[in-house]
Amino acid sequence: MDSRKPNRRGFLKDGVALAGLAAGSVQRATGQIQGTPAKKIHELIAYGERSRFVTSIRVPVAERHSPDEFGLTFHVLTPLQDSVGIITPSSLHYTATHRGAFVPDIDPREHRLMIHGMVDRPLVFTMEELKRFPYVSRIHFIECLGNRAKPTHKTVQETHGLTSCAEWTGVPLSLLLKEAGVQNAASWIVAEGAEEVKGSSSIPLAKAMDDCVVCYGMNGEPIRPQQGFPLRLMVPGFEGIYQIKYLRRIKVVDRYYMTYDDYGHISPDPKVAALTHQIGPKSVITFPSGGQQLSGPGYYEITGLAWPGAGAIRGVEISTDSGRSWKNADLRSPAHRMAHTRFGFHWRWDGKECVLMSRCTDELGTVQPTRAAVAKYWNKPLDDKFRIQGADNSVQPWKVTSDGSVENGLS
Amino acid sequence: MDSRKPNRRGFLKDGVALAGLAAGSVQRATGQIQGTPAKKIHELIAYGERSRFVTSIRVPVAERHSPDEFGLTFHVLTPLQDSVGIITPSSLHYTATHRGAFVPDIDPREHRLMIHGMVDRPLVFTMEELKRFPYVSRIHFIECLGNRAKPTHKTVQETHGLTSCAEWTGVPLSLLLKEAGVQNAASWIVAEGAEEVKGSSSIPLAKAMDDCVVCYGMNGEPIRPQQGFPLRLMVPGFEGIYQIKYLRRIKVVDRYYMTYDDYGHISPDPKVAALTHQIGPKSVITFPSGGQQLSGPGYYEITGLAWPGAGAIRGVEISTDSGRSWKNADLRSPAHRMAHTRFGFHWRWDGKECVLMSRCTDELGTVQPTRAAVAKYWNKPLDDKFRIQGADNSVQPWKVTSDGSVENGLS
Repeated sequence: MDSRKPNRRGFLKDGVALAGLAAGSVQRATGQIQGTPAKKIHELIAYGERSRFVTSIRVPVAERHSPDEFGLTFHVLTPLQDSVGIITPSSLHYTATHRGAFVPDIDPREHRLMIHGMVDRPLVFTMEELKRFPYVSRIHFIECLGNRAKPTHKTVQETHGLTSCAEWTGVPLSLLLKEAGVQNAASWIVAEGAEEVKGSSSIPLAKAMDDCVVCYGMNGEPIRPQQGFPLRLMVPGFEGIYQIKYLRRIKVVDRYYMTYDDYGHISPDPKVAALTHQIGPKSVITFPSGGQQLSGPGYYEITGLAWPGAGAIRGVEISTDSGRSWKNADLRSPAHRMAHTRFGFHWRWDGKECVLMSRCTDELGTVQPTRAAVAKYWNKPLDDKFRIQGADNSVQPWKVTSDGSVENGLS
Repeated sequence: MDSRKPNRRGFLKDGVALAGLAAGSVQRATGQIQGTPAKKIHELIAYGERSRFVTSIRVPVAERHSPDEFGLTFHVLTPLQDSVGIITPSSLHYTATHRGAFVPDIDPREHRLMIHGMVDRPLVFTMEELKRFPYVSRIHFIECLGNRAKPTHKTVQETHGLTSCAEWTGVPLSLLLKEAGVQNAASWIVAEGAEEVKGSSSIPLAKAMDDCVVCYGMNGEPIRPQQGFPLRLMVPGFEGIYQIKYLRRIKVVDRYYMTYDDYGHISPDPKVAALTHQIGPKSVITFPSGGQQLSGPGYYEITGLAWPGAGAIRGVEISTDSGRSWKNADLRSPAHRMAHTRFGFHWRWDGKECVLMSRCTDELGTVQPTRAAVAKYWNKPLDDKFRIQGADNSVQPWKVTSDGSVENGLS
């Protein structure tokens, strides 16, 4: 029981129905299997589906393109407003690319991973060979650098939908690199995918030897095509573009290589680049969030997600008064390293307009900043023109109006 | 690096290709989005699909019924042989029932949960009201009591496919019971679902107040219809029949009630019944397992799942010599309470016939028994007629023959 709620009975008076119930008022369910054609029954047994009453879907980033007009880019947002827990269903995992707006249709029996460059023994692996190595299963988030709230955004899907979290399974990259024998002078790797434009990214060797994973599994099955089937490089905590999909080549090198995808969002200076890969710490309230509606005053569960670019989330705080005061939220899930972490905060809404915010702290003690704090740091006025450069992990405000509707607090 | 493998180079000599590669030998991927009809593009954006090369499916329990002839039962097995990590994809989560072989098609806006009986305040909750309570997200397995290996089973899907694991999200049942005000004389609850026959189970009040969860979320989205949409009672570590699907009623009572589903698999004695609800500790090797094929001598990763009815898995051991000697396996995932836990063991196969086994230990020090140990305990001969009563958590042997094929070691 939550210590902040000495009078639990008030909860019921405020918002929850209190009545006896005749059993007959629970509706008679109609059958989904009975009366279903035999072919459909076989399909439902083979691979189950969600309820027809569940309609949550991903949507494309509105300002970039319509679904019929993909160029080299393809950005599709996770419906965070409907999320529960920390796992994003694979069918709803965000996808984003600048490397060709098609999904390679790869036969895993034909796929190969090559490791070459500054190594003693260049190696080529089939998928079957990779599965003969020791592996790990870890829950990690991915986030696109472009995942930033704008005043024009209505929902949390628009403001923060370019991040998702899954259980990833694969071989530690360090094992494969040790197998190849990395030479002493090496300091970076360049990882390349099999997309249309052969997108690649430079990753510091220290990170590659630390916690990167060459993944073939995602949420208990092979990685989905839109997430990189059959092989994806997981670079925990780094921005999405480093999590190379359709991984086919890793070249060990002695310097940072500027690649096709370094379109000015990071510095060409390798030292600066190495310091700007990492995301967060960041958090956002998913309920109540923009476009949602409170049915009246009373108790609600404020809930959301927090994620750190390094280590694990240590805590989350909530403000219900535009950031003037902060109270500790509860972590509602395990806090895994570089993973979405679910938080909750039991809150009684008095029916007045207010602004809700969340901010998180990682295990190093780094606190998610407000936009005002970032503006002050850069000595810039906090006006409509102010835009945070690089990864924007600033606090997201949601305004609850007196009629219970929720709006983007930046607008 | 694994300390059991001082000579890693031997790995490559044994089984993994070692060669340079012309980049051209990586196949040119063809597009899944490009050239796809516009309607299909919209579908793939809304809710992604798996690769056409991934064909792993659930199958019905063979001896019970064909898919076209479901009576009141419906038992469909998870393809554990293809599993990675600890999350079972919701589409592949096992489903089993004796309570009507159809899936209720419930409109969540109409669904209600009633709590009544020996309480001060009978309560009825809508789904929206339940979501206003504090909640938790936890990874738990479920297993059917009937999940037992037979000598006639060919694959691990047949021997152990009636268990799965997911991230479950919902309200602790203790919060709802405290809200209703449980009376002093109460000692059990009876939980009822909305299936055809209104299946119900009796659960000790102590368990209900400990760690049971009234769940609406599963793997990041609403529970799937075959798993109990929109509401399921999670009773961690207890056999599957207690995890009431389509939960609509909880009656607080002062004694154990025999229900429709207590078809002789537990004792009518409430004390005995309360002691036989709990599953495991149990484990099984998923690779190499029955029906799979090793391509030749060399290094392989033996992998599998372990799960405890109480607490967390503390360790897993592997035998590659029919149980004469045991070595520690590595845990390849976090060991959550009452959850599947992934283990791995790096093994060099010498090409000779052998029998592989796994056994796990839970945090109380309970060790998974061999069939021989169970027979000895009951003072029965270990012959073809020997059958373990109740929950069978005995060690599963897999025989690797000299041609690399794998067979059920019980046959």
